[in-house]
Amino acid sequence: MTQLMNHEEFEAALRRIGATRYHSLHPFHKRLHGGQCTMVQVKAWALNRYYYQSSIPIKDAVVLSRFRDRKIRLEWRHRIEDHDGNIDTEGGIERWLKLTDGLGFDRSYVESCQGILPATRFAVDAYVHFVGEKTPLEAIASSLTELFAPGLHEQRISGMLEHYDFINPSVMTYFQRRLEQAPRDASFALSYVKEHAQTPKEQKSVMDALTFKCDVLWAQLDALYSAYVEPGRIPPGAWTPDA
Amino acid sequence: MTQLMNHEEFEAALRRIGATRYHSLHPFHKRLHGGQCTMVQVKAWALNRYYYQSSIPIKDAVVLSRFRDRKIRLEWRHRIEDHDGNIDTEGGIERWLKLTDGLGFDRSYVESCQGILPATRFAVDAYVHFVGEKTPLEAIASSLTELFAPGLHEQRISGMLEHYDFINPSVMTYFQRRLEQAPRDASFALSYVKEHAQTPKEQKSVMDALTFKCDVLWAQLDALYSAYVEPGRIPPGAWTPDA
Repeated sequence: MTQLMNHEEFEAALRRIGATRYHSLHPFHKRLHGGQCTMVQVKAWALNRYYYQSSIPIKDAVVLSRFRDRKIRLEWRHRIEDHDGNIDTEGGIERWLKLTDGLGFDRSYVESCQGILPATRFAVDAYVHFVGEKTPLEAIASSLTELFAPGLHEQRISGMLEHYDFINPSVMTYFQRRLEQAPRDASFALSYVKEHAQTPKEQKSVMDALTFKCDVLWAQLDALYSAYVEPGRIPPGAWTPDA
Repeated sequence: MTQLMNHEEFEAALRRIGATRYHSLHPFHKRLHGGQCTMVQVKAWALNRYYYQSSIPIKDAVVLSRFRDRKIRLEWRHRIEDHDGNIDTEGGIERWLKLTDGLGFDRSYVESCQGILPATRFAVDAYVHFVGEKTPLEAIASSLTELFAPGLHEQRISGMLEHYDFINPSVMTYFQRRLEQAPRDASFALSYVKEHAQTPKEQKSVMDALTFKCDVLWAQLDALYSAYVEPGRIPPGAWTPDA
């Protein structure tokens, strides 16, 4: 990591991180998309992932707050809009709640975030803190996992619709929408880091930020697997299925 | 939680949290103290726990920084001294390194904290953030797990010395010392929260802070169990035994 990479090499290095560490490779996802999850496991996943989803606009507000450059703030603001929607239109969080509705959860319970795994909270909060404490370049770089999201979401939509009778297209609209949104977001972030990482050290910091973000995603699935896949050690206080 | 508890009731409520959520109850500890851990699992535990140990004086510095009252700062300062020692005397972190030395780790590797589980980092960092972001009362309350530490440390010392031929008294001095230090610390913190939690809401916040801290400890063992106990799913980048 002593030499400055050109843009193509740099992008290739970032894509290698995704190819080895993105959570599409996690065994929980293989089960989820392959139809091997029980309804309890799908519910636990959706409940915990709600905490991640609902923290994203908070994370993006922190990112936005790091920039004096109005143009970047304008560009970044649409991410908050994508997740929060407007008074009369739904956003990503509302779409995620359609998924948890479809799985039989009470909305107020999901929104309270009681019952999520502590490890989910720690990982997600680490992401929010990261974008406030690291450089603005690293804050943007940590969103680069979106480069790899569309492939995962396509797998998820087709796999979950095929394998689970409790999943129908209307509860999957979150992922359907992200197929359009993520590439635009990823494309901006990738151009930004290519332009602004101008030393080997800065390029390394971008790669580390992407690795960190992959860890944030991976740790959430590790915790789900540990708690809800056999033998399943649910930590004290976390959601426990009645039946 | 609508009624103010008297001091005895309040202490009993706090002790009930420990009795149901302290990590002495975690299956990883049962294995560790009962001799069912492999050397690899003991090493993974010591390596990851180093990140916790070495973050404690940072956490305590944040706590100290929350108080304008010099007397509390003086009281709290000895915790930093307990862990950091002085130029010519060892502290708790140095004693922990004797344990990782004894387990065959290179010191510079342990101190780099590369190789720890991301979930360890997220949980420990959550603790450091907690004491900076919550009220000073909650910051102190989150240390109350020390009420329950001596029992665990006694079990650990006798259990590990009995069951593992790679453990000897000299590598266990960390825990031996904590048998004296923890009760003093816990006693101050308990008196403090009894005196300063003067409304049902404040008492609830103290109980929640203790629960949070139990979650921080529990999540670290969940992650170890998930990564290193059979079948063992070690996340990308974490320490992997060669053999």
